[in-house]
Amino acid sequence: MSAGIIKGETGTQRLLGYVLDVGRGDGRARCRLRLTDDHTNRHGAVHGGIVASVLDNALGATASLSVDDTGMAPFLTVSMTVNFLAPAYAGDVLDAVGLLRGGGRSTVFVEGEVRAGETLIATATGVFKRVPQERVR
Amino acid sequence: MSAGIIKGETGTQRLLGYVLDVGRGDGRARCRLRLTDDHTNRHGAVHGGIVASVLDNALGATASLSVDDTGMAPFLTVSMTVNFLAPAYAGDVLDAVGLLRGGGRSTVFVEGEVRAGETLIATATGVFKRVPQERVR
Amino acid sequence: MSAGIIKGETGTQRLLGYVLDVGRGDGRARCRLRLTDDHTNRHGAVHGGIVASVLDNALGATASLSVDDTGMAPFLTVSMTVNFLAPAYAGDVLDAVGLLRGGGRSTVFVEGEVRAGETLIATATGVFKRVPQERVR
Amino acid sequence: MSAGIIKGETGTQRLLGYVLDVGRGDGRARCRLRLTDDHTNRHGAVHGGIVASVLDNALGATASLSVDDTGMAPFLTVSMTVNFLAPAYAGDVLDAVGLLRGGGRSTVFVEGEVRAGETLIATATGVFKRVPQERVR
Repeated sequence: MSAGIIKGETGTQRLLGYVLDVGRGDGRARCRLRLTDDHTNRHGAVHGGIVASVLDNALGATASLSVDDTGMAPFLTVSMTVNFLAPAYAGDVLDAVGLLRGGGRSTVFVEGEVRAGETLIATATGVFKRVPQERVR
Repeated sequence: MSAGIIKGETGTQRLLGYVLDVGRGDGRARCRLRLTDDHTNRHGAVHGGIVASVLDNALGATASLSVDDTGMAPFLTVSMTVNFLAPAYAGDVLDAVGLLRGGGRSTVFVEGEVRAGETLIATATGVFKRVPQERVR
Repeated sequence: MSAGIIKGETGTQRLLGYVLDVGRGDGRARCRLRLTDDHTNRHGAVHGGIVASVLDNALGATASLSVDDTGMAPFLTVSMTVNFLAPAYAGDVLDAVGLLRGGGRSTVFVEGEVRAGETLIATATGVFKRVPQERVR
Repeated sequence: MSAGIIKGETGTQRLLGYVLDVGRGDGRARCRLRLTDDHTNRHGAVHGGIVASVLDNALGATASLSVDDTGMAPFLTVSMTVNFLAPAYAGDVLDAVGLLRGGGRSTVFVEGEVRAGETLIATATGVFKRVPQERVR
């Protein structure tokens, strides 16, 4: 596995099948998911919760990259807003990416977007909070 | 299967394992998910995307109930904001419920919350748009 | 001036003309504004920023009431989402109210709504952060 | 007054004192406000509602620019999320700008930010809806 590529780390990651990339060196984490029939809703399009999942990963790991370049510093999602611009379908590959906009020691603001090829599927903004070190195992 | 209980309808529903209940007759859809290790994040707590998924289901189906009591009228999520108040863990049962707050023919506003027992895990507000009938297959 | 009624405290309050009520004893702050032509937009309806202002006041002061019943403990708005359900007009009286949903020592989650009479004008959810005491004058 | 510069158009604009600029030809509307003591909160910083007001203007007028370059096509704010990154103070000049991200005939998605000089004060995302022509006077 290449440096900075995280696969199968958590239960949710194994279930949904996405790949997390924190190794590009630009402070932005990426999350990729190849859509299958496992990710669709009633309309045959990708489920909004799946879109939110890849965005939460990309934005949360971007928050972690504000601490160090392992992308593993623990952060919790405080609040996230997702705007859904266009549908995606089984066979599409979703690419989500985060961008740090500001914040301080404990609370950071991250935005991001997810595309399927050239098509902008969704945008998001979120507030993330660093897990106090005494609470980390 | 009881009236109003929807199981295994979509790929995402089968993958995540939630149950949708649109049959209580109070205009509010509910979504239940028993958390397992398949739904956890790096912290061993439920993944934010899983929480967003059950909320998206509960709120979207509540939007559908504004049309008729089948809860099947097609709506798309336009925008959703989720606030994360407390963690939940494998073994917990998440119960999400929606509440219609307003809107018109095509755009409706829905809020909701998800609990694990008595604990409030997350709240959400969303904008949902009715799929024009000519676009429904 | 009655206990818990705050008028003309800040520049913005004097400019916009709202009244803040933190004295009902139920942990919920209220903000009232009688709309005039000073508060309207291009459509002759209340400007979205004015609606956001009374909501920010009601939610922020509700955050303060989580500390003590003066409603003066300093909190900053971290993030706020406003959903606009219906217009209001000059002559209407806006009544905004907040409700604490959760949180801890430093970060709290508040929701709220604003009505003009019986009509629900807007709803909001927000994240508020307590200003550390060493930073308060 | 220069082409595309809108001053004193509405009651709220005259009360708050901002200037709207829809004439740069890049599809992005701008809203400028010189902060005075009339715009401050308890902390002596700019009130969150004032920040939301200039963002609502910049984003809403950017929505209008998606129709034609007058920036006057009527749109309503459906939902807006504002993240507050840093304070600004009396004497600062707020500059808000919008950016169209997507949407269709009736519903558009716009994001934006507000700066005071180089400092990023707040970011926003919003959903805006075109007012049907039959409803415009």
